[in-house]
Amino acid sequence: MPASADRRLVILAEGNFNYHNGKTAMGVIRFGRDTVLAVIDSEQAGGNVQSWLGDNPRFAIPIVESLSEALGIEPRANGLMIGIAPTGGRLPDSWREVILAAIAAGLDVHSGLHSFLGDDPEFAAAAVAADASIVDYRRPPDRHETAVGRRHGAGKRVILTVGTDCAIGKMSVALELRRAAVEAGRSTAFVATGQTGMMIEGWGVAVDRVISDFVQGAVEELVAEGERRGDWVLVEGQGSLDHPAYSCVTLGLIHGATPHAMVLVHKPGLTAHEFSHLPERSFPLAPLPDFIRLHEQVAGLVAPSRVVALALNTSLIADEVQAREVIAAIGEETGLPCADPVRFGGDGLWRDIETAVDALPWVTPA
Amino acid sequence: MPASADRRLVILAEGNFNYHNGKTAMGVIRFGRDTVLAVIDSEQAGGNVQSWLGDNPRFAIPIVESLSEALGIEPRANGLMIGIAPTGGRLPDSWREVILAAIAAGLDVHSGLHSFLGDDPEFAAAAVAADASIVDYRRPPDRHETAVGRRHGAGKRVILTVGTDCAIGKMSVALELRRAAVEAGRSTAFVATGQTGMMIEGWGVAVDRVISDFVQGAVEELVAEGERRGDWVLVEGQGSLDHPAYSCVTLGLIHGATPHAMVLVHKPGLTAHEFSHLPERSFPLAPLPDFIRLHEQVAGLVAPSRVVALALNTSLIADEVQAREVIAAIGEETGLPCADPVRFGGDGLWRDIETAVDALPWVTPA
Repeated sequence: MPASADRRLVILAEGNFNYHNGKTAMGVIRFGRDTVLAVIDSEQAGGNVQSWLGDNPRFAIPIVESLSEALGIEPRANGLMIGIAPTGGRLPDSWREVILAAIAAGLDVHSGLHSFLGDDPEFAAAAVAADASIVDYRRPPDRHETAVGRRHGAGKRVILTVGTDCAIGKMSVALELRRAAVEAGRSTAFVATGQTGMMIEGWGVAVDRVISDFVQGAVEELVAEGERRGDWVLVEGQGSLDHPAYSCVTLGLIHGATPHAMVLVHKPGLTAHEFSHLPERSFPLAPLPDFIRLHEQVAGLVAPSRVVALALNTSLIADEVQAREVIAAIGEETGLPCADPVRFGGDGLWRDIETAVDALPWVTPA
Repeated sequence: MPASADRRLVILAEGNFNYHNGKTAMGVIRFGRDTVLAVIDSEQAGGNVQSWLGDNPRFAIPIVESLSEALGIEPRANGLMIGIAPTGGRLPDSWREVILAAIAAGLDVHSGLHSFLGDDPEFAAAAVAADASIVDYRRPPDRHETAVGRRHGAGKRVILTVGTDCAIGKMSVALELRRAAVEAGRSTAFVATGQTGMMIEGWGVAVDRVISDFVQGAVEELVAEGERRGDWVLVEGQGSLDHPAYSCVTLGLIHGATPHAMVLVHKPGLTAHEFSHLPERSFPLAPLPDFIRLHEQVAGLVAPSRVVALALNTSLIADEVQAREVIAAIGEETGLPCADPVRFGGDGLWRDIETAVDALPWVTPA
């Protein structure tokens, strides 16, 4: 996987540059180490990423009409990142044209789609002709091994973010906690388990693409690698334990990572899974205290674990005072440290997590 | 997938014709509709399958030294079934020779291995030359869809077998209950979710081979097909919810099938997962009453379900009287109908299950 330091990216997010459909684009802009030159979304052309992510100068990125407009920006881009997933998994024809034009212009293509662009004969031939690379982040590892029941190393602390739904910020929370841990002087590793995290971090496995028999084995191996890279290992979670479509991946992460502790991510105001295929069915979210207990019970079937904190995504609550009230109320309801680390900073929450994890009887000293 | 009615099989189980490593061989002999002419296992050559499965004339199948001995039996075999999985996933060289010899003799090859024999250039070329077929039962469907949250049809009852460990008889129990249901005059379907079940039934998906993101979608579609085939849909379970390596697949089945009811399969005497990779770690089985409750809680995160019966595999208890005492004691402990349907017949247990399922408030009448 290419290092991101020298990448100058244009991100394709046509018609979908928003928090939900564009979560890959937002994640790479927010947390990646790439230079992002422009976002392509003709519906917001003339706009700026700051209107989504705030006034930080890092986010002063223009939203442009087209690839050719983006290619006019200096220094010139050397990569096109696919920032959205097409509904139904098939590439719209209009995207094919943009991708082919980017390859012809010598840009590498970075994709996290389930369908591998590098296996598409037209894209592959174009890349050879232009001496460009196609990187499919979701391509699974060749390693086909079931879990072996590995123990964590002495002195290692493994923390997994879990959630009450998908696409509510489990990766962002893990990255923000990693930042806080680094600032607190800790030896850390972030373990990417999805394509966006991998684009940001440069290593990892998109576990939702792994053959189900090998998910726990793949996660176990990822955590082993995380332990080689740091003492505090922050594992990005996926899906949710109660999700009608993705809970299998979630449990594979819980039982494959056997985390010492979990941080539950929740988005106050969300009451049911955004699960639009069959709008006549509703899948309400589980009540928090019950869901916390259930996570501990289910994790504990393989190895003891505790939910030591809640990380709230308060983006549905515009008013800051009101958001802080909701955080306090949920802290009260659950009896756990509670914060919105992405909105208000994660330093305080990280201190609480450290204290709680170090007190767990199943953490072994170095 | 070929119909099994006209298949005359030789089963390759070299060195492994036993309940654990040879569970595919045992399952196909016990429950399949194929004619099985011989089992190849040189370590038991001269023996007979009846010494494993009892005096039923169907099991009067010789265990032979070699393929050539098996090919001497009339009417001549037309298929070789791989009845075991090699440790580490790689085919031993000695098996390659047997498989190539079988193909050269015009036999089709039926395999449930993770590595697809049909993709092996040497096997594929040999099959073309001999006009033989290679059927890889674990080959996943092309369909790549996540679950949509489908409801069951009116009047349908979906029952999933779950278990306290892998390889303890979840498929056998589902097949025995299906037999009892058919004899009771019910419209039924057996949904195969593993390669052995597929070899027996002729359709299904090996869900442990499906990309994890699509497991629940694949299971949802399998159950929809089951509902087209019958009113009482018996779904074969996989793994166990507390298994360090396979729980991801198990939860994908629970949340993908959204069964109205579950039957928990347990093997009295087994106290820890047979999980030999790291013998210094022990993964004890969960206590039954807690584990029953947890299954209902976890299933209920997506759709209500109840464990309505226990199916015990008493094969570790040789004495029949003692086995029946254990069954009674576990029935007492759990307050649930309890039997060993494979050893002592499943008619009584099926009647109890029918009664319990029909009383569930979430079963919708036809």
